[in-house]
Amino acid sequence: MTVRVGILGATGAVGQRCVQLLDGHPEFELAAVTASDASAGLPYEEAAKWRVDAPIPSSVADLTVRETDPEPVPDDVDLLFSSLPSGVASEVEPDFAEAGYVLSSNSSNDRLADDVPLVIPEINPGHLDLLEVQRDQRGWDGAVVKNPNCSTITMVPTLAALDSFGLERVHVSTLQAVSGAGYSGVSSMEIIDNVIPHIGGEEDKMETESRKLLGTFDGAELAHHDAEVSASCNRVPTIDGHLENVWAETARDVTAAEVEDAFLAVEGLDLPSSPDRLIEVFDDPARPQPRLDRTLGGGMAVAAGGVQETPAGVQYNCLAHNTIRGAAGAAVLNGELLRREGWI
Amino acid sequence: MTVRVGILGATGAVGQRCVQLLDGHPEFELAAVTASDASAGLPYEEAAKWRVDAPIPSSVADLTVRETDPEPVPDDVDLLFSSLPSGVASEVEPDFAEAGYVLSSNSSNDRLADDVPLVIPEINPGHLDLLEVQRDQRGWDGAVVKNPNCSTITMVPTLAALDSFGLERVHVSTLQAVSGAGYSGVSSMEIIDNVIPHIGGEEDKMETESRKLLGTFDGAELAHHDAEVSASCNRVPTIDGHLENVWAETARDVTAAEVEDAFLAVEGLDLPSSPDRLIEVFDDPARPQPRLDRTLGGGMAVAAGGVQETPAGVQYNCLAHNTIRGAAGAAVLNGELLRREGWI
Amino acid sequence: MTVRVGILGATGAVGQRCVQLLDGHPEFELAAVTASDASAGLPYEEAAKWRVDAPIPSSVADLTVRETDPEPVPDDVDLLFSSLPSGVASEVEPDFAEAGYVLSSNSSNDRLADDVPLVIPEINPGHLDLLEVQRDQRGWDGAVVKNPNCSTITMVPTLAALDSFGLERVHVSTLQAVSGAGYSGVSSMEIIDNVIPHIGGEEDKMETESRKLLGTFDGAELAHHDAEVSASCNRVPTIDGHLENVWAETARDVTAAEVEDAFLAVEGLDLPSSPDRLIEVFDDPARPQPRLDRTLGGGMAVAAGGVQETPAGVQYNCLAHNTIRGAAGAAVLNGELLRREGWI
Amino acid sequence: MTVRVGILGATGAVGQRCVQLLDGHPEFELAAVTASDASAGLPYEEAAKWRVDAPIPSSVADLTVRETDPEPVPDDVDLLFSSLPSGVASEVEPDFAEAGYVLSSNSSNDRLADDVPLVIPEINPGHLDLLEVQRDQRGWDGAVVKNPNCSTITMVPTLAALDSFGLERVHVSTLQAVSGAGYSGVSSMEIIDNVIPHIGGEEDKMETESRKLLGTFDGAELAHHDAEVSASCNRVPTIDGHLENVWAETARDVTAAEVEDAFLAVEGLDLPSSPDRLIEVFDDPARPQPRLDRTLGGGMAVAAGGVQETPAGVQYNCLAHNTIRGAAGAAVLNGELLRREGWI
Repeated sequence: MTVRVGILGATGAVGQRCVQLLDGHPEFELAAVTASDASAGLPYEEAAKWRVDAPIPSSVADLTVRETDPEPVPDDVDLLFSSLPSGVASEVEPDFAEAGYVLSSNSSNDRLADDVPLVIPEINPGHLDLLEVQRDQRGWDGAVVKNPNCSTITMVPTLAALDSFGLERVHVSTLQAVSGAGYSGVSSMEIIDNVIPHIGGEEDKMETESRKLLGTFDGAELAHHDAEVSASCNRVPTIDGHLENVWAETARDVTAAEVEDAFLAVEGLDLPSSPDRLIEVFDDPARPQPRLDRTLGGGMAVAAGGVQETPAGVQYNCLAHNTIRGAAGAAVLNGELLRREGWI
Repeated sequence: MTVRVGILGATGAVGQRCVQLLDGHPEFELAAVTASDASAGLPYEEAAKWRVDAPIPSSVADLTVRETDPEPVPDDVDLLFSSLPSGVASEVEPDFAEAGYVLSSNSSNDRLADDVPLVIPEINPGHLDLLEVQRDQRGWDGAVVKNPNCSTITMVPTLAALDSFGLERVHVSTLQAVSGAGYSGVSSMEIIDNVIPHIGGEEDKMETESRKLLGTFDGAELAHHDAEVSASCNRVPTIDGHLENVWAETARDVTAAEVEDAFLAVEGLDLPSSPDRLIEVFDDPARPQPRLDRTLGGGMAVAAGGVQETPAGVQYNCLAHNTIRGAAGAAVLNGELLRREGWI
Repeated sequence: MTVRVGILGATGAVGQRCVQLLDGHPEFELAAVTASDASAGLPYEEAAKWRVDAPIPSSVADLTVRETDPEPVPDDVDLLFSSLPSGVASEVEPDFAEAGYVLSSNSSNDRLADDVPLVIPEINPGHLDLLEVQRDQRGWDGAVVKNPNCSTITMVPTLAALDSFGLERVHVSTLQAVSGAGYSGVSSMEIIDNVIPHIGGEEDKMETESRKLLGTFDGAELAHHDAEVSASCNRVPTIDGHLENVWAETARDVTAAEVEDAFLAVEGLDLPSSPDRLIEVFDDPARPQPRLDRTLGGGMAVAAGGVQETPAGVQYNCLAHNTIRGAAGAAVLNGELLRREGWI
Repeated sequence: MTVRVGILGATGAVGQRCVQLLDGHPEFELAAVTASDASAGLPYEEAAKWRVDAPIPSSVADLTVRETDPEPVPDDVDLLFSSLPSGVASEVEPDFAEAGYVLSSNSSNDRLADDVPLVIPEINPGHLDLLEVQRDQRGWDGAVVKNPNCSTITMVPTLAALDSFGLERVHVSTLQAVSGAGYSGVSSMEIIDNVIPHIGGEEDKMETESRKLLGTFDGAELAHHDAEVSASCNRVPTIDGHLENVWAETARDVTAAEVEDAFLAVEGLDLPSSPDRLIEVFDDPARPQPRLDRTLGGGMAVAAGGVQETPAGVQYNCLAHNTIRGAAGAAVLNGELLRREGWI
């Protein structure tokens, strides 16, 4: 039994990636796409300037784009993926949830709200039960679950693996791809032969979202992890794939071998978009590299390498595909978890 | 009175930059250029495939390239800049020094040797007196002084400024330009739409050279600084300019404002290649950027920005032109210091 | 005696370049800058997000930005450089001309109008006399002169040189830098690891503007040249510098040597922004290259190379700096010609 | 019945692509890989520094690399794909052919030899019969068939389609990806923020190979086509995908619509690597683009767009994946044709 799904904000970079990932999906059937009012009424192919490096799925090309509003979305659509700009999302997502829709949202609004689960299914699936608190507090028939920011999600699986040693402090430097800012987010004049050592709000997202993701949910309240996280975020001239240099300090001393074993022990889930193994580990210290390794596990795996001990702990590099594992794929995977757990 | 100088290894990327910097120099006159045996006998213009983005100086175009050996270099050349590959340098530099030449060398060999001064004139000019130990121990009439690696020299001026607060621990992530690897060091297939999270030997250089540069020389022995330095080095698709994300922990708590003041207080020297102020500080957190800021102070200044407090200390970004302040310009400036201090 | 000048549209990419070129100009003193209403009233430094890779001139940083309207521009400003978007320019340029200002405009509107001179001073200075027709027809006290499009101006000096052999047909393929589209014209996602084989309107500009520039003015009417020009325009991932592959067919057969001689024979003018020789010729068939050669002659020279005979004529490559010779510098040079010819 | 095949020069860029394309091939089983003597004896995974953006096929990782010599290649290998440097190829290919092996070679040597078929299966399959002349003249039991150069193969399918209108003259400007020069062919310092307007020997290959491919074979001799072809070749900062601007003049006037119809009429072959339709045509004048369209038809299709009439004929753009359709895939497809035609 496939679930009929929709995409809110289907014409942007993440929305297009979502369309691509849903093409041929074993559990979901894309039945509705929304965009800004200017695009409403147009066939999807005309409204979206398709820029994924694979042809537009023919089943979606002719879908009529709807306004981003609960009214025009059919009732038999049971799950909505949201990749709206956060300003728009903070206005309309509650309307959809109130109207009974379940949303798996990639938008950054409300990620830190007490009653909104922020979930990476392989890492903290139990946080999904925050939805009971959410429904209680908000009186919604629907629900909203969030996936974290692309730079956060690249690192957190490795931090979760290290938390068995008592994670205490993290320094992380990111080298982020331009697609993370959307189609027109970074101009070519800004980034050719250049690096921008600042991404507005990104450092804060990495620090706060990580602590929530690694936190403990006791059925009523979610206690954030108390590890210190300090991030420095850079935009570099790559198309896709965020690479991160991480230093981690743990309560007990660990060896590089222990770290690699801990990474390799993180299992995938039995869900269509989850890879067999969440974290792949490279021996070659020059890997992972964005262009060569971003599509590991269909873009849903995290790649790690360069693990070595330092005076204060360990350091390593990690990489994930920022618009798949870091955005559209993360939302789809959360949708798969919602379905398995009976929320839709 | 100008000093007649030569360049060992004049046809490579750093050698060419050195030629450019010596063009019109107020104290030095370029009188000899050497290269590999294959180039010896050719006019410089023919031997060097000139790739600096400014025309080749006409006074140098017709210089005949000599073999890299003391014999063919004229005796009236008093100072040699060496930008030889380290393997060649470790063989021939001692021969030149024994033959009485004073060398300002950018090559990486022997930078950590007990009797070889590793100098940034604005930071540790007193280390130059190690040359007395060197002459004693080696019996040379000449001398060899070294400048540090390009990624080290970008960061150390800022660390020296912070040492007034008691520098204890440093984490640094580098985003290094391709010119640091020489003309054919990084292939285009490796780096377009990509990042390489490893540069062989670079992390070690940053950790060990920094401690030597920040060390104390008592006239007889040089005690290295005991700060912990942990580096993670990345190659990114920029032509020139190394950008670095630094976290520093100091003995006493410091504010961002104190850090900026400390940076701005580092004065330039009264030498032709030293900028008025060594470290420029940007308010805009998105600066410095390699393409926009690498030529500050003629490529001899260090640019800093994004200074902010963290739970454990401070973080900031710094940038320098890797083939000017980080290589050829560093060697020329050391030559200027050698002259002022009477070593030539 | 310096002339007081202003810049209409001073905060954009071309406007900023214009500010840079006027810094220290021997004949012009920048006294007024205008921008969109949103910027009016702000200091220039605050209104312009300065992105030229050289510091903002201190004399301009504090200038108050004015509205782009004749009213707020002081009467003692005698010459205005316009780098407005063509839509805005077509509305306000006539107002300024009517109010008595002389405009040297880089905007694309009206370039083909019968009574508007389109001028490259070294090539067709005589066309400037069209201003008499213009004043007659329009009743203006002021005047408007235009410089051609950046891709046109790169090629036309070479075509003018070839016209001594009877220019009949041209095929030209362009590889254009992203700065030609302004700061936000080309997004990084469009151009990293990519080429865009289309620039809206560009092919037509190259074909029509070239024929006007090469045309003959008899004092009353300007007859366009009848050479066929067919262009194919591509955007490539370079920051500055348009490179063009040209094939030219001429009435009489020419040799590569004759072509090179004809190129070298085009002299610069005795004006501050005109290079000694307009066209530099390279022997190395791999030159000119954008990154290495775009700043020849301070960015005001055209570089040519790869001249060779083909069955139907000759082929060669040419290159110019698109925001200097191709835009801001072209306008400044036209201003210098206007001054020398007594129009201001 | 699968055919056992080998790859000569299996560790280079084209060799690796060939390994990838043979993984899971329905007709061929990769049984032998050769490389330089330095690599002989090593497992393939160790000898090849694998840089394709997909994991190394497990069946090949452990193959022992052999010397590039007929002796160590097993007799039961019936077809060899050669991607050797042309210098090596011109020495060893005849030895292999004499020893009875059939070679489908991508190497550039001998492409113009009278008795060596140069073949694009969808375009000139009949030229394969030149092998009879070859065996006659050379006394070989084996055979050598060549595919054309990557820039030639991108354009020739479109020229063949136009030849129904009487192809007379072609101007072509290429924007070629760096992978065409092999892993270390283009250094990053040469191409970041740059274009190189020259590729040694490339223009000549495009001119001569095109005429041979479009020529007529009467069973005894191959008459080259007499169209004039003039090429201008540029290297641009793209990883894969050669884009070309073409102008074609034909005996009779053609419309853009006729050209598009002619392109769309070129059918694929019933061979595993041949796409359903050889040439895809885009309506959007900004397509095809290398990053978005190079993998059309699994990298074996040619993409065309921007078709328009000019005073002298028509112009358009075309694009193909240079290491698939332009090299490894071309050789594999020729292997498939050799098998279907009974040569192996």
